[in-house]
Amino acid sequence: MTAGRPQPFDEAERTAVYRVIAERRDMRHFAGGAVDAAVLRRLLEAANMAPSVGLMVPWRFVRVVSPETRAAVAELVDAEREVTAGALDERGAEFLRLKVEGVRDCAELIVVSITGDRDRHVFGRRTMPHMDLASVACAIQNLWLAARAEDLGMGWVSLFEPAELASLLDLPDGDEPVAVLCLGPVERFYDRPMLVEQRWAEPRPLDELVSER
Amino acid sequence: MTAGRPQPFDEAERTAVYRVIAERRDMRHFAGGAVDAAVLRRLLEAANMAPSVGLMVPWRFVRVVSPETRAAVAELVDAEREVTAGALDERGAEFLRLKVEGVRDCAELIVVSITGDRDRHVFGRRTMPHMDLASVACAIQNLWLAARAEDLGMGWVSLFEPAELASLLDLPDGDEPVAVLCLGPVERFYDRPMLVEQRWAEPRPLDELVSER
Repeated sequence: MTAGRPQPFDEAERTAVYRVIAERRDMRHFAGGAVDAAVLRRLLEAANMAPSVGLMVPWRFVRVVSPETRAAVAELVDAEREVTAGALDERGAEFLRLKVEGVRDCAELIVVSITGDRDRHVFGRRTMPHMDLASVACAIQNLWLAARAEDLGMGWVSLFEPAELASLLDLPDGDEPVAVLCLGPVERFYDRPMLVEQRWAEPRPLDELVSER
Repeated sequence: MTAGRPQPFDEAERTAVYRVIAERRDMRHFAGGAVDAAVLRRLLEAANMAPSVGLMVPWRFVRVVSPETRAAVAELVDAEREVTAGALDERGAEFLRLKVEGVRDCAELIVVSITGDRDRHVFGRRTMPHMDLASVACAIQNLWLAARAEDLGMGWVSLFEPAELASLLDLPDGDEPVAVLCLGPVERFYDRPMLVEQRWAEPRPLDELVSER
């Protein structure tokens, strides 16, 4: 065993990695409670270990601790939910019957932004400037998986007007919020993705998604 | 234990999840070889378990199996590397000394695209249509972590003109490639992110990235 070549993952470890990937759910039902400060720290450290294009580290986390601010975020989300329902035409009523977020019920509310200094970063972004969002999403996926391993549910809410949320939270100039994360204890994890259980959508089999050239 | 409430992750499982998050690296050095077909299938299944906004499943994978096609992809990446170096001004020469991709050396080359049918999907995307990319990035992060657990390295290359790559691979109309994934056996995993080892960038401590409102 040389330095830089750590022990490979053994079968139990590998199984745990596949388990967390399989059992992670986008949660909208929460059981209140709280998230231990040390656990929250571990989750954010896990997010901060994500890859980022050219190592630009474009993510920022705002923990919403004020009840008034949380209520204002919830109102923004409610408003966008109504507008989305209108835009969905014939599926609008069905959409309104879904529970699409747990902003008021979750233990912790965290807003994730792309930072406004991103235009300094060219490496890996010259032709695809949106790679900064891809990096932020990898950080959120890390957080999601770590939360599941800690027996905490998480949901990614993207029903809001980014400029309004940035203004509400007084984010630095140019910062663009991309996620309202609802995090906390849950009664249960959905057996299957909630939108599958509720027949909103069907999962797609892998064979439809892979081709060769 | 009731249905829907699986056993929580035990400490060994949780440790394995944090380990894979901490030891995943963006790899550019590969050792040739091959990826077992059953392993590749597991990795792609892991990717396909990612969350997606409104369950739209916007990802598609193209496995590049033709040596000629791989060589053409490598040339596209080489060309963009030169243009990026020019756009980096005073850091251009430093950039050109970095190894930024392993397209020719990796065992498997996989191109990931966002699908062209995305404009049908409004749920969670009315104000933020780029959430489809966020979902694709979550799928890639799943694949990355699963690969690390399988002792395989992976690198995400974003140095290419998407329209040129789409044309080269004859992707369906509207599909937008966002990643060239280099996957395969490696001699070693970097102890720290390669761009940190090479002093291109510094990691940012979490305290700089978290605030409260």
